[in-house]
Amino acid sequence: HKLLFNPAMAGSRFAYVKKFEVPDTLLPSTFMVLRLDGHSFHRFQSSFSDQHAFAKPNDSRALELMDRAAKTLMEEYRDIRLAIGESDEYSFLLHKSTALYNRRQSKIVSTLTSLFTSSYVLHWPTFFPDVPLQYPPSFDGRIVLYPSEQQVRDYFAWRQTDTHINNLYNTAFWALVLQGGQTTTEAHATLRGTVSKDKHEILFSRFGINYDKLEPRYRKGSIIVRVEETSVEAAELSGKQKSKAKTHTTLELLHCDIIRDDFWEKYSHILKD
Amino acid sequence: HKLLFNPAMAGSRFAYVKKFEVPDTLLPSTFMVLRLDGHSFHRFQSSFSDQHAFAKPNDSRALELMDRAAKTLMEEYRDIRLAIGESDEYSFLLHKSTALYNRRQSKIVSTLTSLFTSSYVLHWPTFFPDVPLQYPPSFDGRIVLYPSEQQVRDYFAWRQTDTHINNLYNTAFWALVLQGGQTTTEAHATLRGTVSKDKHEILFSRFGINYDKLEPRYRKGSIIVRVEETSVEAAELSGKQKSKAKTHTTLELLHCDIIRDDFWEKYSHILKD
Amino acid sequence: HKLLFNPAMAGSRFAYVKKFEVPDTLLPSTFMVLRLDGHSFHRFQSSFSDQHAFAKPNDSRALELMDRAAKTLMEEYRDIRLAIGESDEYSFLLHKSTALYNRRQSKIVSTLTSLFTSSYVLHWPTFFPDVPLQYPPSFDGRIVLYPSEQQVRDYFAWRQTDTHINNLYNTAFWALVLQGGQTTTEAHATLRGTVSKDKHEILFSRFGINYDKLEPRYRKGSIIVRVEETSVEAAELSGKQKSKAKTHTTLELLHCDIIRDDFWEKYSHILKD
Amino acid sequence: HKLLFNPAMAGSRFAYVKKFEVPDTLLPSTFMVLRLDGHSFHRFQSSFSDQHAFAKPNDSRALELMDRAAKTLMEEYRDIRLAIGESDEYSFLLHKSTALYNRRQSKIVSTLTSLFTSSYVLHWPTFFPDVPLQYPPSFDGRIVLYPSEQQVRDYFAWRQTDTHINNLYNTAFWALVLQGGQTTTEAHATLRGTVSKDKHEILFSRFGINYDKLEPRYRKGSIIVRVEETSVEAAELSGKQKSKAKTHTTLELLHCDIIRDDFWEKYSHILKD
Repeated sequence: HKLLFNPAMAGSRFAYVKKFEVPDTLLPSTFMVLRLDGHSFHRFQSSFSDQHAFAKPNDSRALELMDRAAKTLMEEYRDIRLAIGESDEYSFLLHKSTALYNRRQSKIVSTLTSLFTSSYVLHWPTFFPDVPLQYPPSFDGRIVLYPSEQQVRDYFAWRQTDTHINNLYNTAFWALVLQGGQTTTEAHATLRGTVSKDKHEILFSRFGINYDKLEPRYRKGSIIVRVEETSVEAAELSGKQKSKAKTHTTLELLHCDIIRDDFWEKYSHILKD
Repeated sequence: HKLLFNPAMAGSRFAYVKKFEVPDTLLPSTFMVLRLDGHSFHRFQSSFSDQHAFAKPNDSRALELMDRAAKTLMEEYRDIRLAIGESDEYSFLLHKSTALYNRRQSKIVSTLTSLFTSSYVLHWPTFFPDVPLQYPPSFDGRIVLYPSEQQVRDYFAWRQTDTHINNLYNTAFWALVLQGGQTTTEAHATLRGTVSKDKHEILFSRFGINYDKLEPRYRKGSIIVRVEETSVEAAELSGKQKSKAKTHTTLELLHCDIIRDDFWEKYSHILKD
Repeated sequence: HKLLFNPAMAGSRFAYVKKFEVPDTLLPSTFMVLRLDGHSFHRFQSSFSDQHAFAKPNDSRALELMDRAAKTLMEEYRDIRLAIGESDEYSFLLHKSTALYNRRQSKIVSTLTSLFTSSYVLHWPTFFPDVPLQYPPSFDGRIVLYPSEQQVRDYFAWRQTDTHINNLYNTAFWALVLQGGQTTTEAHATLRGTVSKDKHEILFSRFGINYDKLEPRYRKGSIIVRVEETSVEAAELSGKQKSKAKTHTTLELLHCDIIRDDFWEKYSHILKD
Repeated sequence: HKLLFNPAMAGSRFAYVKKFEVPDTLLPSTFMVLRLDGHSFHRFQSSFSDQHAFAKPNDSRALELMDRAAKTLMEEYRDIRLAIGESDEYSFLLHKSTALYNRRQSKIVSTLTSLFTSSYVLHWPTFFPDVPLQYPPSFDGRIVLYPSEQQVRDYFAWRQTDTHINNLYNTAFWALVLQGGQTTTEAHATLRGTVSKDKHEILFSRFGINYDKLEPRYRKGSIIVRVEETSVEAAELSGKQKSKAKTHTTLELLHCDIIRDDFWEKYSHILKD
């Protein structure tokens, strides 16, 4: 029995290709924000809306599925302390002291995007029991570094402001189309040049909709906070009474304002070391 | 009706946070290899094997599901010309001239890892009809750049050599355990210090297994090649006879040697511009 | 007269090579520290010491020349607010809001290292009037980013601590050699395993040297601070009395402690926006 | 004698700041081109021309000083095989297999730019014996990576084409001003919209200048090639006759065409491994 191919020798002959893996370490002691975006979800969602007459402008099943996937990520990665989601995007805050995967950029961005996607697809049938997935959806991810707490707060404020602007527009738009009988072209024309106040007025005077009374989920997006709870448990060990403090963390899903100080004062541990 | 919050103003006040997104363009005119690895698949697979008595050392269902996910990626991204897979990893070659996502690293690595994962989870029930997924599996991804064709060939040779080394070890190991009645500790001890030839000998003399006759899929891994086919179609357009050449690409799944010249001569278009 | 070579066409045919210049933008809103180190100054200085019997352990001419080059850099680049130097190295702090060269790493590190070197060589004859330069000295540079003020303070403390450790060792070492008659091998052996206190003791008891009374320049290194001075000038313009505030900045060379709070309280503007 | 400050403890307390030095390794097996540019040499040179009535459009002293500095770099760094210079810029080719400073970008770009600058300032008086330097000149540097030989050839062709375009323009421009009596504004107007052929014609018909007969140095720039020479030396060692081959490298300064194949065939070793 003769071996033409010597695997150990081949292994060492080819192993030089590993040297092309150059390091991509992220700056230490800096907050990381991972933002995920649905890839071509417009196409993705539009095909759904065409086929299944989704509720417009918001589909709560789709949003709740996004929240479910976000929770999976936060359950698995304890260094994520806060997340905000709207439509087909979600942003996650990793604390600045995180040593996750030695802060290697590709490793973090790929693994976390992968797990989010995996959870999204796995739990799809729970949220859309009657709607089989036609093809695999995907997300892109990026990591942005922020040196200071203020910048982190402003990042989250930026996403919530975006949620507000998009949702107000979409709410007015679909009211004009679905209740007002306009074509989509006419509805865009009606809204062209209007400011926020005008859209509130259109909704209220034409359709009796008080925008501020609509679902907070649609107006504020979804916020997930990791909350730490310390419980003192009494335990009897080897005849002696001992108590030990144990820290649990739980995840709270909120649809509240994240721009004002109240939120950051209440959950001040988020930005702490 | 008074608006305390002016969204347009807020949008512009917070938008500065976008400036922290620094570019991560990959060097032009360089081959990209994307390698995906199952994240904690040992844990993942071991829990499966414990619960469902998987065939050892290879589970063909798991390997075929990997191939299925790899095909999804190659169907969606035409710039991938070649892929090789073994166990819970897969590598993809993007041609050096690819302009995919303007060669932005995070965008490419996250989106492609996401789509692979998505396809893996979506098609799980087809390959494991009786085994529900217990939790969402994930993959990590990395991109390695190679300037020359020789390095690309050596990369693929490196992965196939690795497949060989791992599979020969695992085949001998599980023969000792499942057929030879050794404990896993004993089997590792038996194999310690053996070279390739010794393992062949153990398999043949003790268990009557001719390693070289085992499934090529296990010994060589999975190779997927994009093959271009040009068909000339005759078409009658506005009364005139016209022929137009049309290029289709199809994906071929192979379990052949990728180290010797034969492969690269037969599929010479893979490395061409 | 026939032109075989069409320069405009050639220019556009070859210009694609510019695309290989990939961006290297540094994270915004982060302090930059540029550290310069003499390249092979050991070799460089030892050749000097061999030929010209330099004063050991410190040559004040060489240190003052380093200070001169550092001042050139700070005169040209207003965003440098602070510098610290010892031996053949110098570190410069650029404020976190600097937009110098759009924060392009290679541009900043190369230009500033170049100017420092240029000033060093240009002013050499002033500090070493009798010693012609034998060959061109060079420096390497690197930029390190620090997100927080505390890290910046700790960086400068780290360099000053290093100055202290090196200078105490070198002072004891050269006292043993030059005054104590030991060989260099013996002097290293004498100092092996000693802590700071022991070296003070050797200097004091054997050579009557009170280390704490030595030149602050040697013990603390050189610190250069940019100080802002606002002067109100009265000016008579077109018959009217007008006053305008004008800000000058001057550079102060110090040899003081930079570790304790006093320094940072006195020069609190250094870290301010 | 009491030490309030424990240097060893301080050293270890502050040393964490070193962790912020993130790696910047350049892709292996890729050609590096280092391009240096005079920083504000327009300002720099214009002040010279104002004060010393430099020859226009080219000052051979300034160009020869650039060549001198380039040679210093190539004498010190053997991995540089080729260089091309024009006006206040110089480009250097490092072979793709270079392991200089472990291919750390900042280290290479800063050290080489520094040494070039140092040599430029040190040798200034040799080339400008009557013109003292008014202030320290500086250069910026950048490294561009090229995966293939063709791209390297095209890079050098791009720079020589640039030399041609600039020099033809400047030659015509200064002929119009210095010999034709035009103001600089008029000269620019005269040349606006002209192609290469027109400028040749202006030079020949108005000023009797045959552009192709001008100094090759001005028309082609400066090219420095490292040439290897192998000499066989006979040596008598311990009674036996032994010959050993010894490789010397010398630097050749040329002002020839680098675009056509001739150059690359004659100096084919430049691109070889």
